[in-house]
Amino acid sequence: MAIAFGRFDDSFSLGSFKAYLAEFISTLLFVFAGVGSAIAFNKMTADAALDPSGLVAIAICHGFALFVAVAIGANISGGHVNPAVTFGLALGGQITILTGIFYWIAQLLGSIVASFLLKVVTGGLAVPTHNVAAGVGAIEGVVMEIIITFGLVYTVYATAADPKKGSLGTIAPIAIGFIVGANILAAGPFSGGSMNPARSFGPAVASGNFQDNWIYWVGPLIGGGLAGLIYGNVFMHSEHAPLSNDY
Amino acid sequence: MAIAFGRFDDSFSLGSFKAYLAEFISTLLFVFAGVGSAIAFNKMTADAALDPSGLVAIAICHGFALFVAVAIGANISGGHVNPAVTFGLALGGQITILTGIFYWIAQLLGSIVASFLLKVVTGGLAVPTHNVAAGVGAIEGVVMEIIITFGLVYTVYATAADPKKGSLGTIAPIAIGFIVGANILAAGPFSGGSMNPARSFGPAVASGNFQDNWIYWVGPLIGGGLAGLIYGNVFMHSEHAPLSNDY
Amino acid sequence: MAIAFGRFDDSFSLGSFKAYLAEFISTLLFVFAGVGSAIAFNKMTADAALDPSGLVAIAICHGFALFVAVAIGANISGGHVNPAVTFGLALGGQITILTGIFYWIAQLLGSIVASFLLKVVTGGLAVPTHNVAAGVGAIEGVVMEIIITFGLVYTVYATAADPKKGSLGTIAPIAIGFIVGANILAAGPFSGGSMNPARSFGPAVASGNFQDNWIYWVGPLIGGGLAGLIYGNVFMHSEHAPLSNDY
Amino acid sequence: MAIAFGRFDDSFSLGSFKAYLAEFISTLLFVFAGVGSAIAFNKMTADAALDPSGLVAIAICHGFALFVAVAIGANISGGHVNPAVTFGLALGGQITILTGIFYWIAQLLGSIVASFLLKVVTGGLAVPTHNVAAGVGAIEGVVMEIIITFGLVYTVYATAADPKKGSLGTIAPIAIGFIVGANILAAGPFSGGSMNPARSFGPAVASGNFQDNWIYWVGPLIGGGLAGLIYGNVFMHSEHAPLSNDY
Repeated sequence: MAIAFGRFDDSFSLGSFKAYLAEFISTLLFVFAGVGSAIAFNKMTADAALDPSGLVAIAICHGFALFVAVAIGANISGGHVNPAVTFGLALGGQITILTGIFYWIAQLLGSIVASFLLKVVTGGLAVPTHNVAAGVGAIEGVVMEIIITFGLVYTVYATAADPKKGSLGTIAPIAIGFIVGANILAAGPFSGGSMNPARSFGPAVASGNFQDNWIYWVGPLIGGGLAGLIYGNVFMHSEHAPLSNDY
Repeated sequence: MAIAFGRFDDSFSLGSFKAYLAEFISTLLFVFAGVGSAIAFNKMTADAALDPSGLVAIAICHGFALFVAVAIGANISGGHVNPAVTFGLALGGQITILTGIFYWIAQLLGSIVASFLLKVVTGGLAVPTHNVAAGVGAIEGVVMEIIITFGLVYTVYATAADPKKGSLGTIAPIAIGFIVGANILAAGPFSGGSMNPARSFGPAVASGNFQDNWIYWVGPLIGGGLAGLIYGNVFMHSEHAPLSNDY
Repeated sequence: MAIAFGRFDDSFSLGSFKAYLAEFISTLLFVFAGVGSAIAFNKMTADAALDPSGLVAIAICHGFALFVAVAIGANISGGHVNPAVTFGLALGGQITILTGIFYWIAQLLGSIVASFLLKVVTGGLAVPTHNVAAGVGAIEGVVMEIIITFGLVYTVYATAADPKKGSLGTIAPIAIGFIVGANILAAGPFSGGSMNPARSFGPAVASGNFQDNWIYWVGPLIGGGLAGLIYGNVFMHSEHAPLSNDY
Repeated sequence: MAIAFGRFDDSFSLGSFKAYLAEFISTLLFVFAGVGSAIAFNKMTADAALDPSGLVAIAICHGFALFVAVAIGANISGGHVNPAVTFGLALGGQITILTGIFYWIAQLLGSIVASFLLKVVTGGLAVPTHNVAAGVGAIEGVVMEIIITFGLVYTVYATAADPKKGSLGTIAPIAIGFIVGANILAAGPFSGGSMNPARSFGPAVASGNFQDNWIYWVGPLIGGGLAGLIYGNVFMHSEHAPLSNDY
């Protein structure tokens, strides 16, 4: 397990600040659309229980928006948009710890700002938070988030890391968006299908409701870390960092 | 802020007229499908209130159709299909003001023709216009449109402008289509999710209903302009114009 | 207007027969999935009227299946899968009339076989045919089909014909699939959204119901022909045939 | 018909074990999402009969997840994720029988593990199995699975095998995911739309219900085998194996 300790000038260069800003903007746009689609469902149905058509709307929105968030950040910050992805890449040695911490701060700030903006533009509607559904225990929720985040971060490594891949710049963001869309269609009615601590943290701040929020830190970080360790140690063929720049 | 004043021969060349025609056709096809999907929902449900499955239908239709409209215009006009995109690129100096004005005219005409055609082929059904939903104020609608159009035009810059990107011709139209699809899934039940003055203007003309129409000029132009200024000044690495030709 | 009359050896070579077989298989798979999704809706809802979630299912199925049908035929036959596309390309001089006639036969046979197979595997359920909805006249249906098929064939030309396009092999089938998906979401409850005489003809044969079938010949052929003439004369930059081989 | 008998060192090399692990992980992630979406529908609707919005959710989930499963395995194992694909490629001589057997074992184990994991994380909900719907006979189910699996494996060959294709690495996984999504939208309410013995076998093991399971071995293997024979003998232009490595 190779953890890289970055030199200070790496994390404070102009390029690094651009990367933090890109993570902030990408996460803001992703969370604004994703959480917005959940508020939209609540408004259209007068807060009814989630149904299949609502799940389709929310899953497609997250999948499309994450695809875009990754694509627009790819060349600047690597397009992580997710503390679990940053953590998985740090465990694999693809990003330094100090830079990773700034990435986390940028991602969390982007999600918080998006959540407060949603409160404003929806006329003060409640911002829904992730929590486990009735009949689902906390441990089950954690295991669900471990599995689906493993799938997400494994996808990040597999589509972005291999230099044999021809059209890397296209397949990676599509695969990352689609695995999140697919996993929400499976996990939505159980754990909510977060796979992303930032996605869960912003709405918790904006609503002041932190119940179950720990689940969406513990699960995704374990799942993302496992994916980084397994893919990095078993499958990695190259010395190059996936989804990251040289700063 | 670099505004380019085009020479007359730029805006009146044969290549420019082809570009205006391409913008006209792309916007016509986009608005025909997008507004058509809203009329289809009204017909199938006997004008019921928007529900999640209807929102999915409308959002996917706009996302798919915009992808196509951008892709089919990309090599001829740059595939703007949207006065807010043209405005954002003009503020960034990627297109001259005079050419931009002709783009606007072509886009607005395309939308108007599409809206009248829809009236004909649907047997005279009402052409629905954008307006803010019950419980949403005009200011909230403007802010919503600013945010989501910022996301759209930022996406245009980020996916089309960077020469480091490998498969530019594929990722840009997909990302542009998907961000509009995702944003409609979030904003649809609030501001309607226009992000595009032409998309809103044509139905207003065909129906004679201009209530709230100003919102879909003010919001998108501010959001698109902000995206052009921020991306152009912070992230642009190249001298090349995104999504635009050399005429 | 350049119509090419093929030499006999062109249309009867081994490569040509492979192309006809590829058109047959692609059209069979496309119609099987597309018409199958309409039968699936009827089965699940006990023949209820089309609703938004059913329209989404049918539109996505047609869009995805056409994308695949075009992609798997692209390198062998050009992936027309549609007599209106073949007609538009013949008017533009990209395919000879004789070869075009064999393409039509292959496409129509593929659709007929698919429709009869559906009867078998669904336990004899009715095979639904295209027709204009209540409240929509025949002329309105024809005009609707002209407009949406114009969009489809214009898309074929614009994404497949331009040599300046970078990743031609990917963008063309996606755009062709997505424009059909979007147009069905708009036109489905009015004309049905065929854009393809073969798609409409097979179910008519299998069900023995040819009412309104002429609409789906007249509309698509006019729309596709217009697109071929306009794009070919105004925008074509190259001498190369879009979506066609050299036989 | 060329069946290749692999040398032992081919099937037991380090690269081969990586390939088996990649098939295991890809199939696990695909089945977890796909079957999970079916359980999610059951939970949201209290085990109601399948409706169009549920079919859209399940079809999109399978399509997106398979796209990802193929994409993340493509460079390591070829991304089969399906015994019928492996069988079709073995019949075409693209993979040795011994390696194919290990692929099958890896795929089946991945599906079984995914199915048991779903039982855990959903709090012990039933894992739904594939079976033919009321009003559909076993023979009809077999024929349906033959046809739709033929389409799937034909797509694998057509998009992954042709060296003339430009952007092979992107189009193949998209086409494979989309044909499965489209075919589920057509076949879901009849045979279930499996196309994949592993997808059907894991839930049968986890639920202990093997009724109809033979249908999802016989149908897909016949359909996949036919596609391999036809495409391999009629259309193949190259000596290169599609979706497979050199071990």
